[in-house]
Amino acid sequence: MYKVGIVGASGYTGAELIRILHHHPCCKITKVYSRSLEGRLISDVFPNFLGIDLSFSDPKNDDFADLDLLFLAVPAGAATEYASRFDGKVIDLGADFRFKDPHLYEKTYGIKHQAPELLLQATYGLPELFRDKIKKSRIIGNPGCFPTSIILALAPLVKTGYAGQIIVSSLSGTSGAGRNLSDSQHFAHRNENFGPYRVGCHRHTPEIESNLANLTGQNHQVVFVPHLVPAIRGITSTIYLDRVMSLEKARELYTDFYQDEFFVRVKGPGENVESKNVIGSNFIDIQIHEDKHADKLIIVSAIDNLVKGASGQAIQNMNLLFDLPEYTALDFYPIYP
Amino acid sequence: MYKVGIVGASGYTGAELIRILHHHPCCKITKVYSRSLEGRLISDVFPNFLGIDLSFSDPKNDDFADLDLLFLAVPAGAATEYASRFDGKVIDLGADFRFKDPHLYEKTYGIKHQAPELLLQATYGLPELFRDKIKKSRIIGNPGCFPTSIILALAPLVKTGYAGQIIVSSLSGTSGAGRNLSDSQHFAHRNENFGPYRVGCHRHTPEIESNLANLTGQNHQVVFVPHLVPAIRGITSTIYLDRVMSLEKARELYTDFYQDEFFVRVKGPGENVESKNVIGSNFIDIQIHEDKHADKLIIVSAIDNLVKGASGQAIQNMNLLFDLPEYTALDFYPIYP
Amino acid sequence: MYKVGIVGASGYTGAELIRILHHHPCCKITKVYSRSLEGRLISDVFPNFLGIDLSFSDPKNDDFADLDLLFLAVPAGAATEYASRFDGKVIDLGADFRFKDPHLYEKTYGIKHQAPELLLQATYGLPELFRDKIKKSRIIGNPGCFPTSIILALAPLVKTGYAGQIIVSSLSGTSGAGRNLSDSQHFAHRNENFGPYRVGCHRHTPEIESNLANLTGQNHQVVFVPHLVPAIRGITSTIYLDRVMSLEKARELYTDFYQDEFFVRVKGPGENVESKNVIGSNFIDIQIHEDKHADKLIIVSAIDNLVKGASGQAIQNMNLLFDLPEYTALDFYPIYP
Amino acid sequence: MYKVGIVGASGYTGAELIRILHHHPCCKITKVYSRSLEGRLISDVFPNFLGIDLSFSDPKNDDFADLDLLFLAVPAGAATEYASRFDGKVIDLGADFRFKDPHLYEKTYGIKHQAPELLLQATYGLPELFRDKIKKSRIIGNPGCFPTSIILALAPLVKTGYAGQIIVSSLSGTSGAGRNLSDSQHFAHRNENFGPYRVGCHRHTPEIESNLANLTGQNHQVVFVPHLVPAIRGITSTIYLDRVMSLEKARELYTDFYQDEFFVRVKGPGENVESKNVIGSNFIDIQIHEDKHADKLIIVSAIDNLVKGASGQAIQNMNLLFDLPEYTALDFYPIYP
Repeated sequence: MYKVGIVGASGYTGAELIRILHHHPCCKITKVYSRSLEGRLISDVFPNFLGIDLSFSDPKNDDFADLDLLFLAVPAGAATEYASRFDGKVIDLGADFRFKDPHLYEKTYGIKHQAPELLLQATYGLPELFRDKIKKSRIIGNPGCFPTSIILALAPLVKTGYAGQIIVSSLSGTSGAGRNLSDSQHFAHRNENFGPYRVGCHRHTPEIESNLANLTGQNHQVVFVPHLVPAIRGITSTIYLDRVMSLEKARELYTDFYQDEFFVRVKGPGENVESKNVIGSNFIDIQIHEDKHADKLIIVSAIDNLVKGASGQAIQNMNLLFDLPEYTALDFYPIYP
Repeated sequence: MYKVGIVGASGYTGAELIRILHHHPCCKITKVYSRSLEGRLISDVFPNFLGIDLSFSDPKNDDFADLDLLFLAVPAGAATEYASRFDGKVIDLGADFRFKDPHLYEKTYGIKHQAPELLLQATYGLPELFRDKIKKSRIIGNPGCFPTSIILALAPLVKTGYAGQIIVSSLSGTSGAGRNLSDSQHFAHRNENFGPYRVGCHRHTPEIESNLANLTGQNHQVVFVPHLVPAIRGITSTIYLDRVMSLEKARELYTDFYQDEFFVRVKGPGENVESKNVIGSNFIDIQIHEDKHADKLIIVSAIDNLVKGASGQAIQNMNLLFDLPEYTALDFYPIYP
Repeated sequence: MYKVGIVGASGYTGAELIRILHHHPCCKITKVYSRSLEGRLISDVFPNFLGIDLSFSDPKNDDFADLDLLFLAVPAGAATEYASRFDGKVIDLGADFRFKDPHLYEKTYGIKHQAPELLLQATYGLPELFRDKIKKSRIIGNPGCFPTSIILALAPLVKTGYAGQIIVSSLSGTSGAGRNLSDSQHFAHRNENFGPYRVGCHRHTPEIESNLANLTGQNHQVVFVPHLVPAIRGITSTIYLDRVMSLEKARELYTDFYQDEFFVRVKGPGENVESKNVIGSNFIDIQIHEDKHADKLIIVSAIDNLVKGASGQAIQNMNLLFDLPEYTALDFYPIYP
Repeated sequence: MYKVGIVGASGYTGAELIRILHHHPCCKITKVYSRSLEGRLISDVFPNFLGIDLSFSDPKNDDFADLDLLFLAVPAGAATEYASRFDGKVIDLGADFRFKDPHLYEKTYGIKHQAPELLLQATYGLPELFRDKIKKSRIIGNPGCFPTSIILALAPLVKTGYAGQIIVSSLSGTSGAGRNLSDSQHFAHRNENFGPYRVGCHRHTPEIESNLANLTGQNHQVVFVPHLVPAIRGITSTIYLDRVMSLEKARELYTDFYQDEFFVRVKGPGENVESKNVIGSNFIDIQIHEDKHADKLIIVSAIDNLVKGASGQAIQNMNLLFDLPEYTALDFYPIYP
């Protein structure tokens, strides 16, 4: 039984790790950490977990002994310290290990990277694309939610050498912004309200571009606009591309590319992509459309931002690190309705 | 491996059975039935299940051979035929086996009971209260969603001989009404909309009263008003009672009564009951309050109407019938947020 | 043209005053006040008002000269100062002038009343019940949202001498709690979530009981439990009463009692009460049901908490104070869907 | 007092016409028509209108005598008959008079245009762009909701000769699909659910392209993907354009272009566009962003699909036809929250 700990377990991605790992047959959460909640029961913060006997420890006073793996669900800039102090396996759900180039990280997040030497031990944790490298890494930079939905939707095409335009319009539920209170997330403001935000400057754009470049060896320019919609979970990405091949070829390309991937469901002709079809699961649904009139391919994807876009994917990476079947504890189907 | 079938698998409770049973270690869904969808894949109706290889059969042309148990998720009046034709174990999620007295059923549902003799083989499927009898029964009348939330919240008190007033105000998400389209369930009408319905005449009132009477041997009169709220899942019931004992005694009574029940969580002082804390799980949360000023005890409960209020409880009953640990495949925690 | 000012215009009830008064043919908002937003445009805080040329002043440095009337939309305890400093007409949307007895106010709100002598100049602002007194008053204590929905639903009955039980279950949208950020109002927590709160101790209970007593000269004991539901606006109240008269008599009683009231709509047989039918309007819908089985009358009402439950009613009171037709600027119909 | 009638008053746009016209000082609804509801009160269908004394007539047996203007809120193909039979002014909220070319209409809607000769008397009813022609027309083709949000957001730019790419991602609430029941609009399916629909084939694309061409004399190719989100009202459109001018120039261009337009609010630097800021009003909010990295201008707009996107704009057109101030009965501000 592997022993794992979670630093930053009082947030939504921490809670989602706890919910899913509760069913993992080969690993057990032995420690949850929070700097402000030492001694409190997990169910004091998340009453849905009433019955789970786990109390918060302060990560400052802990040497993480006995742990086989540490999940880090902390703000950008806070993960490097833990990854330095703990020499076991680390999966960071934040941004600190998503970039190979510390300068790009610094430009994007406006803070200095505290341990650039660790980036050499780190791999971007998209299992469907970087599986072999992940297995051999000590540190995993778990991808952002938007990048997961976009990179997986683009990978088969860009790996053919696609060099055309990439314009992305993504929609997201609110849980991606976490538990921090804000006017934008106040129910009376957010319900019955939607629209774009951070137009032209979202932090996920460099993450998408640099990891596409890692994948293909080419540069790719991405226009990315996220939109907030009045739902809790879910991301859909609508990607406008040049029609470099027919719809049938594109669907064949994607079906072949992902044929052995349990978590990728390439939809058949006539089927629609909606966020609800993946909520509560680690699946990504992908559909390919064409606009013949305007000569475009339009690829659409959907994920649960807290599962495939965060904690589920982190557990998928953990399974790889522990050499377990990749879908262990993750082979559940979406909750509907 | 037990083999089970589901008649009426195209509705929400059918889908919830499929979702949960997918993880059951000792039983397997081998047949799903629908009169109108013969030959269609389950994922044609529920795209969230893309990847599950199950196709609908027509129940009319089937002898249910090889099945160990049949779940019936069909409208009132339609279950008796299947329970007659199949001589294995049957769990009916509808109302046909919830009453001992066929006349009360007929008065309540306005249709004649087609097989009153089967009622002798049937038990009301509230495991926490009728466990021993359930284990020995062939047919289980799985309780209604509102009655589950109300009877479990009243049981410890009424078993002490409580003979006071029982006034219930329940709130429900919309999924309890199923997939049938209606003006009331049209999104533009239902969102940002709430209020009471079927005031003074809901079909669950006789189910509650008669099963409380079965529990105590006494008659109990219940005033019950349900309210529809703009949420998909969840039921909360607020029950106004005479203050026949102090708050402390009442909490002690409930804590003791349910101390060995995995699925019943009696909340501690100061904790609130909200529907979200149980969504996606088979738990029922119960809290006891008092209004000293008006000399009332006020008991509040919350369940997921599709899990503890329907399919989860049905699987809990199945586990009892198969002599398996009661929480098999049901020991997952609520999804949050 | 009457000149009015609003202290506390940065909250939801302040905004609703601005929205409605914008169309008032005989009065004009000349000043809006906020202690923290001096100099800012109203549209900086409420972008929906882009185009309205109003800037915040600091109420501390203002003598309210030139104003004919002051609306106070401030927290409990803060209104007395303004009502003392300004000797014109005052409508307080908070609790400071809702009680005749300062001790009851102090017990309920846990703060000392700063100007009990002003209570003699104040009237509880329910126009349908206290119209004549309102017209002659300098200060109006505008009723709370729940009390408005409950007292108007009870008035015809209690005025006949009804002395039976009064048990109330109310549902409310979230805007009643205002703009202050809280975990309970965080979208990811609140959406798909509902349940009772402040069971047995809500501050509106004494307001309801004391104003019912003012109406009838009798004491009335009320059991009141509010529930929060995932909607922005709206309140419904379900009131369980002894069946002291037949349904037909009760409906006749209510229809007669409110026959000249523009804003009270007593529903006909078979019609349902839903919050959506009054949203955006100053109407209160009332329906009467019976539960013959349990010998109860069940009365249901619905209002928009920010209109009839706050700002609309305040303007209705203003119209009375200015001797204008009561429905001036308020005769708009609910927005649907 | 002008007398107006509404054919198809039982739908959402019909209801919105009634709600707004109720306050119009110079016109009165004297007849509402529905083929299936003859004799029923408007409040039987829309209980929010309880108190408005209007009953449905059958339009088949009516000669529309005494009417000054007829609003048509009927399905595509049904409007031509009424526009032929009635020789007064007609405003059609459907698609029958939005195209100059009947063949494009026929290709788009798959039905033959029944009165192509009437197209010569018709003008596309976007007042901000075609005001003078509208005033002189007998028949107005009231624009679609998406086209309104997109054409107004593009007009200043395309009129400068812009010939670059136009890629549009729009989000819409559900009320645009009307009252017809469907699985997609069932609350339990739609809440917490979102995604693109009719990718590459929406009927509004030809409407947008042909009316942009009418405006500029050039051809414009538009890529348009709508998305459905779990809200009742509102549309936002995010438009990706080549950066043919700087952000400052673009903002100046738009501010100048719309400086005399009451209903167009070009937002200042740093302000966000959200659907909620226009809900319940006839405003369109427009904001201009740039993505320097990818060399794009990104223009965003928001409207209430039932007001500026349908009934409000229809009344704006009516005011023009009657030579009234354009904002009569329309100068209300959005409801918030």
